[in-house]
Amino acid sequence: MKALYAQSGGVTSVINASAYGVIDEARKNGLEIYVGINGVTGILKERFLDATELDIEFLRYTPAGAFGSCRKKLKSDADIEKLFEIFRKNDIRYFFYNGGNDSMDTAWRLQAEAQKRGYELKVVGVPKTIDNDLPHTDHCPGYGSAAKYIAIAMMEAALDLRSMYVDSTQVFVMEIMGRHAGWLAAAAALGWVNGIGADIVLLPEEPFNKDEFISAVDNIVSRKGHCAIAVAEGLKYPDGFFVSDMGYTDSFGNRQLGGVGFTIAGMVRSELGLKTHVAIPDYLQRSGRHIASATDVQEAEMCGRMAVRYALEDNYGVMVTMERVSDEPYEIRYSSVPLNLVAEQTRMLPKDYFDKFMVTEKFFKYALPLIQGEPYPPFRNGLPDYKLLDLK
Amino acid sequence: MKALYAQSGGVTSVINASAYGVIDEARKNGLEIYVGINGVTGILKERFLDATELDIEFLRYTPAGAFGSCRKKLKSDADIEKLFEIFRKNDIRYFFYNGGNDSMDTAWRLQAEAQKRGYELKVVGVPKTIDNDLPHTDHCPGYGSAAKYIAIAMMEAALDLRSMYVDSTQVFVMEIMGRHAGWLAAAAALGWVNGIGADIVLLPEEPFNKDEFISAVDNIVSRKGHCAIAVAEGLKYPDGFFVSDMGYTDSFGNRQLGGVGFTIAGMVRSELGLKTHVAIPDYLQRSGRHIASATDVQEAEMCGRMAVRYALEDNYGVMVTMERVSDEPYEIRYSSVPLNLVAEQTRMLPKDYFDKFMVTEKFFKYALPLIQGEPYPPFRNGLPDYKLLDLK
Repeated sequence: MKALYAQSGGVTSVINASAYGVIDEARKNGLEIYVGINGVTGILKERFLDATELDIEFLRYTPAGAFGSCRKKLKSDADIEKLFEIFRKNDIRYFFYNGGNDSMDTAWRLQAEAQKRGYELKVVGVPKTIDNDLPHTDHCPGYGSAAKYIAIAMMEAALDLRSMYVDSTQVFVMEIMGRHAGWLAAAAALGWVNGIGADIVLLPEEPFNKDEFISAVDNIVSRKGHCAIAVAEGLKYPDGFFVSDMGYTDSFGNRQLGGVGFTIAGMVRSELGLKTHVAIPDYLQRSGRHIASATDVQEAEMCGRMAVRYALEDNYGVMVTMERVSDEPYEIRYSSVPLNLVAEQTRMLPKDYFDKFMVTEKFFKYALPLIQGEPYPPFRNGLPDYKLLDLK
Repeated sequence: MKALYAQSGGVTSVINASAYGVIDEARKNGLEIYVGINGVTGILKERFLDATELDIEFLRYTPAGAFGSCRKKLKSDADIEKLFEIFRKNDIRYFFYNGGNDSMDTAWRLQAEAQKRGYELKVVGVPKTIDNDLPHTDHCPGYGSAAKYIAIAMMEAALDLRSMYVDSTQVFVMEIMGRHAGWLAAAAALGWVNGIGADIVLLPEEPFNKDEFISAVDNIVSRKGHCAIAVAEGLKYPDGFFVSDMGYTDSFGNRQLGGVGFTIAGMVRSELGLKTHVAIPDYLQRSGRHIASATDVQEAEMCGRMAVRYALEDNYGVMVTMERVSDEPYEIRYSSVPLNLVAEQTRMLPKDYFDKFMVTEKFFKYALPLIQGEPYPPFRNGLPDYKLLDLK
């Protein structure tokens, strides 16, 4: 029986740990495991890699998509037709798709089409997104490590700001990924458990009121002399318009956002006359495997393993989920949810996780268990010893 | 005998290790050691902290300026008069100033003024700058850790880009600090020793030719499908004008730069029609102590110790320097240089360290020894256990 695994959507620093879990578990269960290069985009060109004998140890610590990812949405009948032709020709009977909201839509379509066509195919989705916005799961692999990266980056930047504010910069702004949900931007406040973090978090879930924001910055700077701000790229005005709409759409049809950090800093400069600095970690926050969460790495691998186990138990057409059993001690249980319930859905930060410009104690309880442990990658020549496959 | 230590200029992730070296060495030699808060800005307000009994262990792993920094240039006679009044009143006889080009100018003025006034004062400069642009020293504490941060960030972002390019982003641009010199931007290429790094580095030392640049990007994208670019904020056109001049000056009178990453990405988008992503690590690159160079941390501490030793040997009016004895095995020797020879001087990347858009083997030989070793900070609650002094 042949199984196919592929990666899709924006990558994370631990998506390869899920790949490791899928491949290792598939091998242990006697499946012939193949990997599609660049998700469905490469599969449509029959770009496979035989992973039955592949040395996969590097997947545990190398960030981003070792097998290439894609942004393709499976919409056209021709693409679906072609895909089943390729599946049939290669006798693919299991398909493990590792991605976020859009990728689960692809997975769901494939499962539905297989049933319609009477082609025996077991599809299981492996969750992955730094955005943490998939519904029906407590959290998503990739989030814990990105949250840890953001929390540390903000702690360090805030210490820097605190050193400089007397006669230089008073306001630091960090622009954080998160088009619809503020899970990641919220993480910029986590450093407060160790004494320093973001003073203000601007979330997509809280409609942006410029006057209130400027007044909040003014109060904080009056009190302590400086103010560190985290802003989600998806920050919106009350009318739903993005504070920083770039004026065009990306390849998934989503509005392209950018520069909200500079927009926010500009407001502070012109309204309060304060000196500002802006950081935009961009890819660094989602592929920063040099600092990751051990919890996240381990769960990413387990989500991969569970996908294989579910498929073998005939529990397919589902995505692997995690249910939280308890916060202290932190414990989760793996489960599954039908793919159509996650496809293209977005889970926002719950209302009781934030209060205007700051997160609440509930958010700390939720997020802190997800960022525990430091599984450092091996180093060589003073740099991480990441490995690259030749994908040509 | 009373000694005063203070921090000045943009901070680094290891400047506190120098503070540790100065304070510990001063104590061991029976000096009464005080620390000025916010450099000369705070000293002018008699903001001191008695460090004779201070628990200083946290200085070894906490980034940014634990005692606050400043951007003040000592220019006015009134300030100098006031400073000597305060020195005299508190019987300050040693002054250790930890900073870069501008701060060494301050240190030099104070030493010269002391001699003119017949006030016995021994001033020794402790070098510090991520920019690595102080002359007469092989390198500067702070550079190795920032270079390591940049090298790793670029490796991780390039892996991300490599995952996404097929139907999403083809060109990634990282804007790196360095107003005049390209030492830090050059570090974005170091990852090649482990197989992945920046494809193009745009340095202030190489006058920017847009046509050649666009053609280079086009060639690289044609060959491998994607291109990772590091650009120094101080990139200049052949006429000396900054590619991204913000239109105003900072508190040191330097032109404020910003947004060169977006300028470069915009050129690529409009000329080649490629999708781009831009990262601006800003403060993250200079205070990112969660990943630092062990060599750098150790040398930063030693530079602090040597400053005290030199002063006690009556070698003052100098800045501590490092001379490279050999590359392999890496060995340096501590020495000193008169402060007036470093004050307001800038050391550029030597011409044989780069060739248009890429660094040479000579740069690798120079920079790699400086980024070795991973002295991780202690963690608590999943985050670095940095400590803050109450500076009120």
